[in-house]
Amino acid sequence: MDKILKVARSIKAPDGRLLKKAQDRLDCLTKPQGSLGRLEELASCVVAMTGDENPALDNKVIFTFASDHGVTEEGVSAFPKEVTPQMVRNFLKGGAGINVLARHVGARVVIADLGVAADLEPAAGLTIKKIGYGTKNMAKGPAMTRDEAIRAVNAGMEIFESEFKKGVDIVGTGDMGIGNTTSSSAITAVFTGHRVEDVTGRGTGIDEKGLERKISVIQRALEMNKPDAKDPIDVLSKVGGFEIGGLAGVILSAAARRVPVVIDGFISGAAALVAFGMAPMSKDYMIASHCSVERGHKLILKYLGLRPVLDLDLRLGEGTGAALCISIIEASVKILTQMASFKEAKVSERIER
Amino acid sequence: MDKILKVARSIKAPDGRLLKKAQDRLDCLTKPQGSLGRLEELASCVVAMTGDENPALDNKVIFTFASDHGVTEEGVSAFPKEVTPQMVRNFLKGGAGINVLARHVGARVVIADLGVAADLEPAAGLTIKKIGYGTKNMAKGPAMTRDEAIRAVNAGMEIFESEFKKGVDIVGTGDMGIGNTTSSSAITAVFTGHRVEDVTGRGTGIDEKGLERKISVIQRALEMNKPDAKDPIDVLSKVGGFEIGGLAGVILSAAARRVPVVIDGFISGAAALVAFGMAPMSKDYMIASHCSVERGHKLILKYLGLRPVLDLDLRLGEGTGAALCISIIEASVKILTQMASFKEAKVSERIER
Repeated sequence: MDKILKVARSIKAPDGRLLKKAQDRLDCLTKPQGSLGRLEELASCVVAMTGDENPALDNKVIFTFASDHGVTEEGVSAFPKEVTPQMVRNFLKGGAGINVLARHVGARVVIADLGVAADLEPAAGLTIKKIGYGTKNMAKGPAMTRDEAIRAVNAGMEIFESEFKKGVDIVGTGDMGIGNTTSSSAITAVFTGHRVEDVTGRGTGIDEKGLERKISVIQRALEMNKPDAKDPIDVLSKVGGFEIGGLAGVILSAAARRVPVVIDGFISGAAALVAFGMAPMSKDYMIASHCSVERGHKLILKYLGLRPVLDLDLRLGEGTGAALCISIIEASVKILTQMASFKEAKVSERIER
Repeated sequence: MDKILKVARSIKAPDGRLLKKAQDRLDCLTKPQGSLGRLEELASCVVAMTGDENPALDNKVIFTFASDHGVTEEGVSAFPKEVTPQMVRNFLKGGAGINVLARHVGARVVIADLGVAADLEPAAGLTIKKIGYGTKNMAKGPAMTRDEAIRAVNAGMEIFESEFKKGVDIVGTGDMGIGNTTSSSAITAVFTGHRVEDVTGRGTGIDEKGLERKISVIQRALEMNKPDAKDPIDVLSKVGGFEIGGLAGVILSAAARRVPVVIDGFISGAAALVAFGMAPMSKDYMIASHCSVERGHKLILKYLGLRPVLDLDLRLGEGTGAALCISIIEASVKILTQMASFKEAKVSERIER
């Protein structure tokens, strides 16, 4: 826990002076002031976060963490739990959605097993930091021990640090884990205070009856475990997942290293809630990539005060929304660093009438 | 006019059978059905439009057409009209917003002078198809003759055809022309039937007084010229612009060639209205890239029944929104053509409970 607290405390606010300086520079470029809207906002934020007035997002990294969830035995998912290891193998072969989109935007994908309920063959591109063979069923008791929760966050931090040595300019979060929308809904209910039925959606595609069951399973888990919203590690251990803890660790480490973190969808949003609970300042390094179809996601974004960049009706996870958003952020930074100014291009400025 | 009619009549509906086939294929890929939302919709549309079950969007072309507007003498813009040729030179040097974003997404930009009120030096990358030295002041009479309107549309078709020979898989539209939001508001009011004040915005950034003046100038232009909404060439000649006519020509030719056309913002939207008026089927080849800050744009999209892909508070034009959207569309097509199926990846399918 000491390490987590140390990292959390080391997060500094982005540089407000640089935010202003970047906007001043954008205002001199050959376009009406403010006419590139959110691109201008994103570019300024990246400057303020990184402290670099000429940022280049050459090293784009998406962390896709996989883990299993004991709560699947309650029948909360439309897919069987063996899909988790099967999809990890699909990631490693490059055939999944995140692979396609990461290639498209020039990002590398770091796949890690934080707690898949199967032994995965060691493979290039796979980091194994298994905390357990899936969590326990949160409807019957805590999903994991407090120690496991801390180890999951630490594992995410270690994976980030190991990549950081290779070069990381911007980070995307991603997840794979059958049952993890159930865990994310529970986490969202605890931190935001919304009712379970308002933060619970269909995940991979359960029907009406399945949704009712899912809601009642989450309600039971919360009643039984009584997670303490003031203690994020308690929430994570009682109703979380190993991959969610790991992603919270990535978010904290990235913020501490002044690296912008692009939050994917609902599960990444739950990880963002955990990170925010431990270090509110980490929020200032988060960029919300998109607005998920999963209903609880909007409430997470509202709670964190983040406005999503994209709204494409996505609900796949894996980091797919983050990948697309990273390309938009890279475009925004190129606007700042590559566009000509009015002076350079000899273009007349606006008329003061 | 014969040529325009011929092209307009040659537009065939996209292939509905292929639309279904593409969706069936998407449903077999390793993700919950429908979980990639609008990416799935875009990929299917591209298949249906192009007739190609494995489309590759290698040749991405943005047509950025420039022209001047006589109505600027009424003081409707925040920028002086010499900015039009100055910005064309900026485009040719690669320093404008569209250059940066087109490079980012791997698109080439075709810059054409349809009617800039200055003689531009011939340059690599610049097509000169000047219909006139800017339009006439529409507040005092028709912006152009009927013959000029026809020639503007024809010029756009010729520029498209010339590029088509080099290879064009997807097209974006873009514009540059001080005063062209005034023309576009007039066009929008005529076709959609909305009041001038509801379709007129601040363009490059006029103040409240400027906006009032702009609205009254447009109202005067419409009262004086009485454009006939049933005759798109009449509308174009009375309150249009040469670049808007040219872009309408690009849209018609692209649709006739079964090439998807990504419509940029408000000015491109006005061109889309003209194209739609001449050939309603052309709409089935349009993809709305983004929702502009310019207030009339939403009403154009509603009128055409197009749902924008992005919403980034853009209002620059040039094709900047189209460029960003083209990258999202390319991503969608790669999802279709590069993702592994459940069978290929040996991933279990959903449980039928």
